[in-house]
Amino acid sequence: MASETGNESVFTWAAPPIKFGLGALDEIGAEAVAQGAARCLVLTDPRVRETGTADRVRDSITAAGVKAEVYDGVATEPTDESIEAAVEFAQDRESDCFVAVGGGSVIDTAKAVNLLTSHPGTLLDFVTPPIGGGKAPWLPLKPLIAVPTTAGTGSESTTICVVDLLRLHLKAGVSHPSLRPSLAVIDPLTTVTMPPAVTAASGMDVLSHALESYTSVPFDAKPAPEDPRSRPAFCGSNPISDVWCEMALGLVGKYLRRAVLNGRDIEARYQLALASTYAGTGFGNAGTHLPHANAYPVAGAVRDYQARDYPPMPMVPHGQAVSSTAAAVFRWTYPADPGRHLRAAELLSGRTFTTTDGRDALPDVLAELMRDIAMPAGLRSFGYTVDDIDQLVEGTLKQTRQLAVVPRPVTRDDLDEIFTASL
Amino acid sequence: MASETGNESVFTWAAPPIKFGLGALDEIGAEAVAQGAARCLVLTDPRVRETGTADRVRDSITAAGVKAEVYDGVATEPTDESIEAAVEFAQDRESDCFVAVGGGSVIDTAKAVNLLTSHPGTLLDFVTPPIGGGKAPWLPLKPLIAVPTTAGTGSESTTICVVDLLRLHLKAGVSHPSLRPSLAVIDPLTTVTMPPAVTAASGMDVLSHALESYTSVPFDAKPAPEDPRSRPAFCGSNPISDVWCEMALGLVGKYLRRAVLNGRDIEARYQLALASTYAGTGFGNAGTHLPHANAYPVAGAVRDYQARDYPPMPMVPHGQAVSSTAAAVFRWTYPADPGRHLRAAELLSGRTFTTTDGRDALPDVLAELMRDIAMPAGLRSFGYTVDDIDQLVEGTLKQTRQLAVVPRPVTRDDLDEIFTASL
Ligand SMILES: [Fe+2]
Ligand SMILES: [Fe+2]
Repeated sequence: MASETGNESVFTWAAPPIKFGLGALDEIGAEAVAQGAARCLVLTDPRVRETGTADRVRDSITAAGVKAEVYDGVATEPTDESIEAAVEFAQDRESDCFVAVGGGSVIDTAKAVNLLTSHPGTLLDFVTPPIGGGKAPWLPLKPLIAVPTTAGTGSESTTICVVDLLRLHLKAGVSHPSLRPSLAVIDPLTTVTMPPAVTAASGMDVLSHALESYTSVPFDAKPAPEDPRSRPAFCGSNPISDVWCEMALGLVGKYLRRAVLNGRDIEARYQLALASTYAGTGFGNAGTHLPHANAYPVAGAVRDYQARDYPPMPMVPHGQAVSSTAAAVFRWTYPADPGRHLRAAELLSGRTFTTTDGRDALPDVLAELMRDIAMPAGLRSFGYTVDDIDQLVEGTLKQTRQLAVVPRPVTRDDLDEIFTASL
Repeated sequence: MASETGNESVFTWAAPPIKFGLGALDEIGAEAVAQGAARCLVLTDPRVRETGTADRVRDSITAAGVKAEVYDGVATEPTDESIEAAVEFAQDRESDCFVAVGGGSVIDTAKAVNLLTSHPGTLLDFVTPPIGGGKAPWLPLKPLIAVPTTAGTGSESTTICVVDLLRLHLKAGVSHPSLRPSLAVIDPLTTVTMPPAVTAASGMDVLSHALESYTSVPFDAKPAPEDPRSRPAFCGSNPISDVWCEMALGLVGKYLRRAVLNGRDIEARYQLALASTYAGTGFGNAGTHLPHANAYPVAGAVRDYQARDYPPMPMVPHGQAVSSTAAAVFRWTYPADPGRHLRAAELLSGRTFTTTDGRDALPDVLAELMRDIAMPAGLRSFGYTVDDIDQLVEGTLKQTRQLAVVPRPVTRDDLDEIFTASL
């Protein structure tokens, strides 16, 4: 709907039902029954399985009288091939309910498995054109219970699943309201086993979801769509997402250092799980912008960097990739809304800032926090040099979904400057 | 799930997807298409129909190529009989999508119509025992789009429908997750035609949803349920509902006077519609307590009171009934959590309060606001005297859903004292 200025005047918001609390994990059996399940498939990855969490979920389901089996073959970065393997496993078992126990890759995989076991065709049929066929799901999907174990991903709240299309050498997304989980179960106790570097990266991902959504272009500063059906899934910052984002920023600022220092600090784990839920709920419809757009090429072009506390393979963890350019991005976005940048710096630090502190306030607060939790500072930590900047810029320019909500017009030169400053 | 103390450690939260904005009304056709509708039934009441809003919604739907018809026979207080008439109308048209345009009575009626056109049996089969059969819906329901036009009801967010069972002389509720609307469309422009007394009463209803939820018993101060499935729909105050309630209180305190004074104050209408959405989203799972419990007998025992700006019939409007005992209730609940009561007074007034101001702070702020917006003060305005107190107390004691989240143990004497102070 257009206002008198021709600008957008409508925003949308949606979130899955949430069950939150210490011990919520043991109620998944009751929830599977409530969803009418007869045969549940619990999807997870080998590392989460090692913690025992996935088996505990399976036991809760079988104790409730519902058949359940664990599939632990989810890949660290889901690909079309890893998803096909999971789909085959699910089809053989005639699963009628999916339970995703893990981080974003597990929940994204479960969304794709839910889609492809209820529809004919391949994932590519559902990927946005020109890469894919752009089909929308036309049949009902099965219930999907998301159990995030990392207090980082927002995937439990969103309609999106991101996959590596190996044959095409491309990362692509499928998004549809029917992919959103039917329920998110968040048990802060599942996060206490995360090692410090994983806690730090996940926390920075939450922070970035909140901060990017909070500073994304206001929904009513964009032109109205011709047709309401062509309104993008991410509508930019709005009065509802703002509330969630502010709450999340305050909690991350207050508790992330404590959780990194002492993983068994239950109060910190509880508040960070809440922050992740707030951010997931809030950003699901506002949208992330440059730090997340930059994270795709930063993670994708990795050569031999291996992160502490992560599997021994070349990989830039998502939270590290996202935060590697955050300070430079927010120095650059500052003029779009100085008030919000200063307010975010206040929420994160508990200190007071004015326009005299200017564009450095927020980047300084971010740098301080990242130093305290031992996050890698700068793209050089991952092995990148000035010679890689062109390739990184190219990669960011492909992320149209994120670029649509950047609060300032962004040019190739701007991106060059941001990546260079982030080295 | 029980914590080490045997107390509850889990809370739940859910809200429908929301579309919010100036002109959102004209996108209902597109939404009906998105829900796969072929024949929509637009439910409304005669007064809302007079404003033209329901016909505008119908036109938006037919313009999108979907059949639509308006049923404007919804009663001001829905009864089993008025619902049966609507069910019959819907069945004749083979409606496959419902659109409720109006206040709480219209949205509640649409929920019941959706339930009874998709299931055999009568409403009484679904009412909680011992009054009714206590059945849970076992078949899928149709999409229901709720379009609140009063910025007051929270019905667009909840799973509840409240009905007068005429033959049994009882007010009863049916509640199930499948009754929650599939989408809430909120267009602040639909509220500008509300006359001042209706604006005032609706605003006080929003305020009371937020204030009661905010001061309801904390979810983790109650004993854990034996079985998670027996957990009540209203779980008491929790970190998510608290955020929304605080936001709603701030907005009502700031904008309600303006909207009552000048119905065309679009900024005030916009912010109050947002407050109503926040309160609906937030309180949907925390729950209201005594002011709403008291409102049932206060509205139910009406003799000849007629409210300004309402239909010419004996009736205590819901918002007036709710606020008639609010000051006395919050003076009585103060010791349960002085900090929250003072904070609420601050949010509503923009002033600062300390424990020195004590239990009078919040009741005084409420009385001040009610005076400024010309709300009837006291039960005597409705024609009640000391002789009615016993009957009112009896009526409140039947409201078990609300009594379950009162923040202090409540006795018959407490209720007597609250009603007497509210005369
Ligand atoms: Fe992220
Ligand atoms: Fe109410």
